[in-house]
Amino acid sequence: MFESPLFWPAYIKKNVLYVLDETLVPGKLKYIPVKNVKGAVNVIRQMKTRAFGQFLVVLNTFLLEIQNEGRGLSPASQGDCSLQKHLQYVAHELNNSRPTFPFAEVTGIVIGSAQKARSEGKDVRIAVIKTIEGFLAGIRARRLQRVNEIAQALQDGDGILTHCNVSGELAMAASLARTEGKHVKFFATETRPYMQGAKLTVWEMQEAKVPVTLIPDNAVGSLMADGFVNKVIIGSDRSAANGDIANKIGSYQIAVLAREFRIPLIVLTQPSRGVASGADMPIEIRDADEFLVFNGKRIFPPKVKGFYPGFDVVPYQLITKAIAIHAGL
Amino acid sequence: MFESPLFWPAYIKKNVLYVLDETLVPGKLKYIPVKNVKGAVNVIRQMKTRAFGQFLVVLNTFLLEIQNEGRGLSPASQGDCSLQKHLQYVAHELNNSRPTFPFAEVTGIVIGSAQKARSEGKDVRIAVIKTIEGFLAGIRARRLQRVNEIAQALQDGDGILTHCNVSGELAMAASLARTEGKHVKFFATETRPYMQGAKLTVWEMQEAKVPVTLIPDNAVGSLMADGFVNKVIIGSDRSAANGDIANKIGSYQIAVLAREFRIPLIVLTQPSRGVASGADMPIEIRDADEFLVFNGKRIFPPKVKGFYPGFDVVPYQLITKAIAIHAGL
Repeated sequence: MFESPLFWPAYIKKNVLYVLDETLVPGKLKYIPVKNVKGAVNVIRQMKTRAFGQFLVVLNTFLLEIQNEGRGLSPASQGDCSLQKHLQYVAHELNNSRPTFPFAEVTGIVIGSAQKARSEGKDVRIAVIKTIEGFLAGIRARRLQRVNEIAQALQDGDGILTHCNVSGELAMAASLARTEGKHVKFFATETRPYMQGAKLTVWEMQEAKVPVTLIPDNAVGSLMADGFVNKVIIGSDRSAANGDIANKIGSYQIAVLAREFRIPLIVLTQPSRGVASGADMPIEIRDADEFLVFNGKRIFPPKVKGFYPGFDVVPYQLITKAIAIHAGL
Repeated sequence: MFESPLFWPAYIKKNVLYVLDETLVPGKLKYIPVKNVKGAVNVIRQMKTRAFGQFLVVLNTFLLEIQNEGRGLSPASQGDCSLQKHLQYVAHELNNSRPTFPFAEVTGIVIGSAQKARSEGKDVRIAVIKTIEGFLAGIRARRLQRVNEIAQALQDGDGILTHCNVSGELAMAASLARTEGKHVKFFATETRPYMQGAKLTVWEMQEAKVPVTLIPDNAVGSLMADGFVNKVIIGSDRSAANGDIANKIGSYQIAVLAREFRIPLIVLTQPSRGVASGADMPIEIRDADEFLVFNGKRIFPPKVKGFYPGFDVVPYQLITKAIAIHAGL
């Protein structure tokens, strides 16, 4: 099966963690070599990798540092510092790399595993490696399972609209469906302001050899009215217990239009984290400069006042089918 | 009343036609001096002015050339050429400036007036000047009347969403409404790909001292869901006999969203030119480079395939109120 670089954007090879520089995609496919926790913190701080990539970097950094421990490479290990103490130092550095990100949830799993091993008199090193590797393998399996579920939802002749970017999974599912003999083609919205549809989805689909056409965000209604689209598939950033989801701004209006044309809307959902409904999800109002400045250049007069909610909520009533990633991510 | 430069973007002063260079707006307010039909053809060919501006240039060029005739300035008048013949030359040059544009409809009025005057033994020069000046005055009066009608449709406290740019009239109506003590504020969509909302509407509203906020095209649904908008006003490029209209791509999906939230949709309409319904309006599929290239620079990889319908159709069922410009334009 075709595997998109965005599906698994960080991996360890011979004591080095290679992290896909997502800021250069799709112009360049460059992996940043990371050798220790300091390098990992830099990569996270400079936002070289996004949501799932950050998660991979955090977990893999512990493996990297455990390997370094054995070879005396890590600066923090120079002193008289047990492996457990060193892991706590690594967790602390990662937790503080971007204060608003809940990395402690992930590092806590590693620290907990080390504590448990020690209290049970087991080898901390082996226990932690086993925990992390098991965790990563589980996530990978669940993600691949979802790729397969998405592929099964695709049918021969489908014209599928997507918005923003569903890292890796959608392009892989499309590729798999085509391998199964289903002729599917995709339409990707530009997804202003960051153009993830144009920059990531189109690129991934092309890499997967899946036919894809880019459209302006304004052309969604027209495309549906003209019968080009018979399915909409989007991702989600958050899910509520009642089935509402939050996703990239523009998702809501696409959902309303899909219902207008009785086009099924499939959402790839996250596990719900204790939020009852969409009304309980605070919508981040982003700095208007994020759309007033494009590719580093101010594209409108400086005194223009902008309003840019980064996400919107799609109520469950508009969602035809949710394909969930199961707990653990 | 505040008058937007886009409301009347070309005027004659002391034998020179000044044409607003709309390609520089809003960065710069520069008028190109045009002295004869050759200059007018250049301005039209280089697309320095748009729809209504081109119309003004065409009519005013006849006035310019009639004035030049009297002073022997026009190259075509050097020979033995009657005024009528010269007007035919001017019409021919203008008609051929952009072959796909129906300038002949407008130049035909002038030529017809000259023929009629001659056949009736009247002074051709005086008859033509009277025809053109009367025509321009009539259009100006009707446009100002519509500005007033729009202003009357605005109410204290309105939050009005608009799309693309309704040259001059909307900003003037907003200004008029505010003079009348109505606190109205506007939201302008960016209007990808050309960003007319960002570049023209926001600028005009700011010049008119009307509060205006720019939003990404993707935020329309979110804005309505959050109750910021209680009225939508858009222009139209064409009108059909049944009340359907064609307008800038994105208008249709805004209309669907407005109905979803029971927000009245007001459309400024053109006279219907013999088209029965929206289905009879061919929608121009524009070159995808128009959105793959931005401000002269290719913003996506060259092999990206794009689909960009320039306009879409809003069926009459979604239109709450049409404010027509009356026949003659």
